[in-house]
Amino acid sequence: MLTVFTDEYFMMQAIKEAEKAALADEVPIGAVIVCKNNIIAKSHNQTEVLNDVTAHAEILAITSACAHLGSKYLKSCTMYVTMEPCVMCAGAIFWSQIGKVVFGASDDKRGFMRYGKELLHPKTKLEFGVCHEQCGSMVRHFFAKKR
Amino acid sequence: MLTVFTDEYFMMQAIKEAEKAALADEVPIGAVIVCKNNIIAKSHNQTEVLNDVTAHAEILAITSACAHLGSKYLKSCTMYVTMEPCVMCAGAIFWSQIGKVVFGASDDKRGFMRYGKELLHPKTKLEFGVCHEQCGSMVRHFFAKKR
Repeated sequence: MLTVFTDEYFMMQAIKEAEKAALADEVPIGAVIVCKNNIIAKSHNQTEVLNDVTAHAEILAITSACAHLGSKYLKSCTMYVTMEPCVMCAGAIFWSQIGKVVFGASDDKRGFMRYGKELLHPKTKLEFGVCHEQCGSMVRHFFAKKR
Repeated sequence: MLTVFTDEYFMMQAIKEAEKAALADEVPIGAVIVCKNNIIAKSHNQTEVLNDVTAHAEILAITSACAHLGSKYLKSCTMYVTMEPCVMCAGAIFWSQIGKVVFGASDDKRGFMRYGKELLHPKTKLEFGVCHEQCGSMVRHFFAKKR
């Protein structure tokens, strides 16, 4: 049987979102939220264009997914995000009680994992490392260009 | 000399915002952001009406203040918020590089201080306890009614 809806498939959709951010000269991070194999929200970092430090891909995706479902909680959803969420986004993910988070590349400097998985809701499953090389190199390339 | 623009004065404005939340059956938390003694943003928790777990008073206030100033950063501003910010909001406050945060009542369960002041930007000053009895009793009263 051909399994189309793999973690890699959905992470590639998040990477496509990150590419939109790169084109707009934003830090290239993208996210999608999936419910029953349907992408119900997709977003990319928009802090520059919106002039708003809270406009990270994850925050925008949660707001969008909640609006789509008409629910404050995302218990049966999975978020795919290209980089390890920051503390702000981990806090938002906590409140959403999302079923699962899959992130690509780690962020040793600003990622939430410095504080441990307990920043997420106890019921939220966590995976990481999916397409991490591609996810991480986009961000490294972005900052290398800025120097 | 009569000093009008005290911490208590601005916290009372945040409490007025929290009262608006209470009237709308939201968890009663309010915030104002002050720049050169002018209130440039005020907001209250709107998670229910907006159906969005990210719509905490602090997040809405930061977004609003950034729009007002046309700046991603709030270095010369002070946020007054009635309750200790959660981890998500502390993360947003970090990114905003706000000059100072003053919160009223502590939140031992969900407050960011469990992880220490280092969740905020190193340049952000922190004070708390201003009007804490009034700030805390609003929230206690709200949850007592729900039981």
